Amino acid sequence: MKNKVIITIARQFGSGGREIGAKLADTLGIPFYDKSLIHLAAKESGIDEDLFDYADEKAYHNFWTTSASNTSYYGNRISLFNEMPMNDKLFLIQSNIIKKLAENGSCVIVGRCADYILQNDEHTVPVFIHSSEQDRQNRVIHTYGIAEKDANDVMVKTDKKRAAYYNYYSGEKWGRADNYDLSINSSAVGIDGAVDLIIKFAELKLETLK
Amino acid sequence: MKNKVIITIARQFGSGGREIGAKLADTLGIPFYDKSLIHLAAKESGIDEDLFDYADEKAYHNFWTTSASNTSYYGNRISLFNEMPMNDKLFLIQSNIIKKLAENGSCVIVGRCADYILQNDEHTVPVFIHSSEQDRQNRVIHTYGIAEKDANDVMVKTDKKRAAYYNYYSGEKWGRADNYDLSINSSAVGIDGAVDLIIKFAELKLETLK
Repeated sequence: MKNKVIITIARQFGSGGREIGAKLADTLGIPFYDKSLIHLAAKESGIDEDLFDYADEKAYHNFWTTSASNTSYYGNRISLFNEMPMNDKLFLIQSNIIKKLAENGSCVIVGRCADYILQNDEHTVPVFIHSSEQDRQNRVIHTYGIAEKDANDVMVKTDKKRAAYYNYYSGEKWGRADNYDLSINSSAVGIDGAVDLIIKFAELKLETLK
Repeated sequence: MKNKVIITIARQFGSGGREIGAKLADTLGIPFYDKSLIHLAAKESGIDEDLFDYADEKAYHNFWTTSASNTSYYGNRISLFNEMPMNDKLFLIQSNIIKKLAENGSCVIVGRCADYILQNDEHTVPVFIHSSEQDRQNRVIHTYGIAEKDANDVMVKTDKKRAAYYNYYSGEKWGRADNYDLSINSSAVGIDGAVDLIIKFAELKLETLK
């Protein structure tokens, strides 16, 4: 791809969105960020990495600034920051990192409201991946190794958490087609089909920027 | 395209969805149905065509069986049908026609819950088209000739009606990505780009049926 492109991927749990993101990054030869963003954010902020992991893609729920003393970088800059709930701080730190990554060059970012954070960046292609319940259950059981009896429960709860996180921070509705440039049912076209379509879409969108 | 394909298009008002549907049908050399379905339904049912026009894509709102005596074909078959609100009758008649069209061969159908009605047909590719508010306003003003001062109001009200109709009859949420195989922001890739992507998507989905 000639132009810089930031592909953000929001996804139903078990839809193959992460795999599609990783294949996209591999095909285009660009970096891939998902949980790795947590490590970057933790490093930048001085906050305990376990705390980031705990708060990852969770919206605010009575999780206050118990570790305020650890916010060495951001905590010293503005007093408002010190007063924020911890989840909001983590969101803000992660948002800044996402913006920096997008400035630096092409990449694929999975989850973490990246589509919302980069909504004004013309090089961004926001994508949503979903799939049939059957395919999601199969992936959750056979790829993620979750017990069959728990699969549906884990799927529903994980998506509820993702939706709550997205809706809380963006003020929009997770999974609504008009929040993304492109939404694909991966059950219909498979992982490779989705990768091809996203690349074709990105080329079409970005060729107007030449 | 080698396989039979039924492309259904749901669309935000002013997003270019109808134009994309017409171009798709033209490119693939297959029939295109939108309001024309009303004429077919009216012809089949014996109900006044104006009544169909009035009820088109409107959900139930105190619009009872005032013309029950005209339901010559369906009215004589089952008494339950006679007891139905008129909008529900029209939906049922239109649903039957949509199913027949899908059985007969490839086509493009715009609106009218066709994605929901044909959800179990493996040859169906349900698509949702949306676009930026700016592009929608421009299209509404310059293509549909609606006065600038009224454009936003017409857009909002028309989409509210479409959502109410879809939500009422399908029990799902209009515009939610996971109700469709493919959702596209036509502002990002243009009308021709959207047509190309839908054809590529349909080919990928249907090649598994060979």
